[in-house]
Amino acid sequence: MIATDSVLLTDLYQLTMLQTYHAERMHETAVFELFTRRLPLERNFLIAAGLEQVLDYLENLHFTAEELDWLADCGRFGPDFIAALATFRFTGTVHALPEGTAFFANEPVLRVTAPLSQAQLVESRLINLIHFQTVIASKAARCVLAAPDKLLVDFGMRRAHGAEAALLAARAAYLTGFAGSATVLAGIKFGIPLFGTMAHSLIQAHDREEDAFERFAIAQPGNVVLLIDTYDTEAAAHKLVKLAPRLREYGITIKGVRIDSGDLAEHARRVRRILDAGGLAEVTLFGSSDLDEYRLRELLADGAPFDGFGIGTRLDASTDAPTLDLVYKLQDYAGRPRRKRSEGKATWPGRKQVYRQTAADSAFIGDCLGLEDQPRPGDSLLIKVMEHGRRLQPPEPLAVIRNRTRAQLAALPVALRAHQPAPPYPVTIAPELYELAARLDREAH
Amino acid sequence: MIATDSVLLTDLYQLTMLQTYHAERMHETAVFELFTRRLPLERNFLIAAGLEQVLDYLENLHFTAEELDWLADCGRFGPDFIAALATFRFTGTVHALPEGTAFFANEPVLRVTAPLSQAQLVESRLINLIHFQTVIASKAARCVLAAPDKLLVDFGMRRAHGAEAALLAARAAYLTGFAGSATVLAGIKFGIPLFGTMAHSLIQAHDREEDAFERFAIAQPGNVVLLIDTYDTEAAAHKLVKLAPRLREYGITIKGVRIDSGDLAEHARRVRRILDAGGLAEVTLFGSSDLDEYRLRELLADGAPFDGFGIGTRLDASTDAPTLDLVYKLQDYAGRPRRKRSEGKATWPGRKQVYRQTAADSAFIGDCLGLEDQPRPGDSLLIKVMEHGRRLQPPEPLAVIRNRTRAQLAALPVALRAHQPAPPYPVTIAPELYELAARLDREAH
Repeated sequence: MIATDSVLLTDLYQLTMLQTYHAERMHETAVFELFTRRLPLERNFLIAAGLEQVLDYLENLHFTAEELDWLADCGRFGPDFIAALATFRFTGTVHALPEGTAFFANEPVLRVTAPLSQAQLVESRLINLIHFQTVIASKAARCVLAAPDKLLVDFGMRRAHGAEAALLAARAAYLTGFAGSATVLAGIKFGIPLFGTMAHSLIQAHDREEDAFERFAIAQPGNVVLLIDTYDTEAAAHKLVKLAPRLREYGITIKGVRIDSGDLAEHARRVRRILDAGGLAEVTLFGSSDLDEYRLRELLADGAPFDGFGIGTRLDASTDAPTLDLVYKLQDYAGRPRRKRSEGKATWPGRKQVYRQTAADSAFIGDCLGLEDQPRPGDSLLIKVMEHGRRLQPPEPLAVIRNRTRAQLAALPVALRAHQPAPPYPVTIAPELYELAARLDREAH
Repeated sequence: MIATDSVLLTDLYQLTMLQTYHAERMHETAVFELFTRRLPLERNFLIAAGLEQVLDYLENLHFTAEELDWLADCGRFGPDFIAALATFRFTGTVHALPEGTAFFANEPVLRVTAPLSQAQLVESRLINLIHFQTVIASKAARCVLAAPDKLLVDFGMRRAHGAEAALLAARAAYLTGFAGSATVLAGIKFGIPLFGTMAHSLIQAHDREEDAFERFAIAQPGNVVLLIDTYDTEAAAHKLVKLAPRLREYGITIKGVRIDSGDLAEHARRVRRILDAGGLAEVTLFGSSDLDEYRLRELLADGAPFDGFGIGTRLDASTDAPTLDLVYKLQDYAGRPRRKRSEGKATWPGRKQVYRQTAADSAFIGDCLGLEDQPRPGDSLLIKVMEHGRRLQPPEPLAVIRNRTRAQLAALPVALRAHQPAPPYPVTIAPELYELAARLDREAH
């Protein structure tokens, strides 16, 4: 059984290209950079995420006997080439933006320096891993900016695109400041705090709503969050006021209620009044139902007294911007800078670095995309994280990445933190990069 | 190491609800139905997909010792409940629309009939599996309708949302009529034909574009599809005309070229002329670059002489409609129909069936959502596929599903096959269903 994270989770053309490189003995060093050509209209900044999964992948990359057998049997590849794959490992160097770093168009998130075949083969999965978590972290960061003081929980597993998306969405949301996730396996794999309430079916399976509330509270005394919109939201709130004293006799406190339908702001205000008048001022209000950063802003602007929100579908699929134009391009091979000149898709050649200038209070002033060996003023954002195919540091704790993201969001220009499209953050291209590109174009003619 | 497809890939609330049901000994039969409350504006119909993965999941569902240990250690669950989970299996019945069936709002895709805890626990993953493949199959079907005579290939792995999404997108696209995928592992797992060309990096890594073409052709003589837009598309086409006779001496034929940037239609016309004039009329043209059904229609309306297309990002993330409002709701418990009455989210209660009326030529006339035990005119679309937790038939070959999808697309009303929003397909609600809902509402007051 070949695993889902097999080295063969790649595009066929990677293998056919590798066969060509093998036949030609093209084993010199290649430099590929991973970057986005433009931001979606709906995003003023992106948050880098997915690096740990990339490093795991590169450290473990190899072909199993079963995979080699499949390649031999499929009829597309020669025995020499397959024999070479048996000892294939990734032995290269990786530079990357630390996870949680804000970045912009044209700025490399990752640079791979390795023998051509190694750097080529990993393209499809590297994009796949960085792309998805960056999509989600960038969306989640906007939710955090919309409701900075609220408890935000990832509720999106069911409408995430498959199993891995559900797990990695929980991770990406958490590292940008979400409090946790409802997805149990994400809690296990990444140590993310878990949150959960109940579904409408629990209420419906009981003949009386008040019985459902009471029995759930008794079975889960430590975490009594009750869903109150199955039939009539305000009537359910009144039932809780009646139920609370009886539960208190068992030593059980109602911790919160969740509202999942209708006019959320209006229901929240009414329920808050009912609970407060009934001596349940400490019960928190949790909202859900197709939420995202736009709805959060509306609800909070409308004075809805929610303490937290479950954010599902629109987060885990980043529905307003589900993909990025993230690409992985050859910038240097065998010591010579390379440039793709396709219309609308030309690249900046060479080994590049992102130089970021900041003010005394750490606020971002502007970035410069330059060459690595010709430093510009500012901090160099790309850090060496892997050498000889091995991590240089152990995986970063998510708490460290959360702190970094928080600092980055605070340092972004204010207009970029809003949800409206803002004038782009200033990213200048270093003159030496223009010159290099021009020189390569001249030499090609 | 707990696997990605663990039973714990679920929402925490499923487990807390199960603990409640365990404490209350609520083990009677529940009926849940999976359906979408509405179609996205961008979809006139949906294509059901993902059933085989659901049946695999249900047949294999159990808790491993490691998973039980985690549950015991997390402090949320009692020892009695955990002991009960050790023998947990899915023993229920499943009715479903066969994969490839066209369906509409409110129509169940799947119905689960099982003891309450079993039917409840599987909710999150069942939605996750059916949702994603249905999203992709519905998108892919629109591409097939836009370019029915062209070779369509899934190119989307890199921007699919994670590993599983990449694999299942390839499957969903293939079952609606795509010719295959570039994703190697999807070929291995599902027997899907594989297609591939080359990336720009192969061209760039050579000092001369014509050398790259020649060497790739010699290394891959059986599948020479060359990417010609790295520098100057028409110049590259002229290089091929020069190269072809030399390759012919080696017995190698250029099979096709791919164009990936610029004005695709204009480039295709020019390249076609250059190749035809150069004696390469048999070389096929393959287009890629942010394609979807809208772009395919434009290109073909514009007379672009393409033979096939690689469709990536916009297919694998279904960017114009990345999610569906797909839900899984309790419709009957312990022999009593149940109804959720939340504002805007009320459900039709009871065990339902979709009755579809067709004309003599098989064209769809209209559907009726009715009760299973009160048949209406037309074909019953939900079929029993699992009983006592076991499949009733072996998995359907993808070829069978492809034929079904083709027939379904041909039977759809013409307006629904267009890409513009069309008046909704007629789905009536049986009078007995209105009556049942009204009776339940009356009894609740």
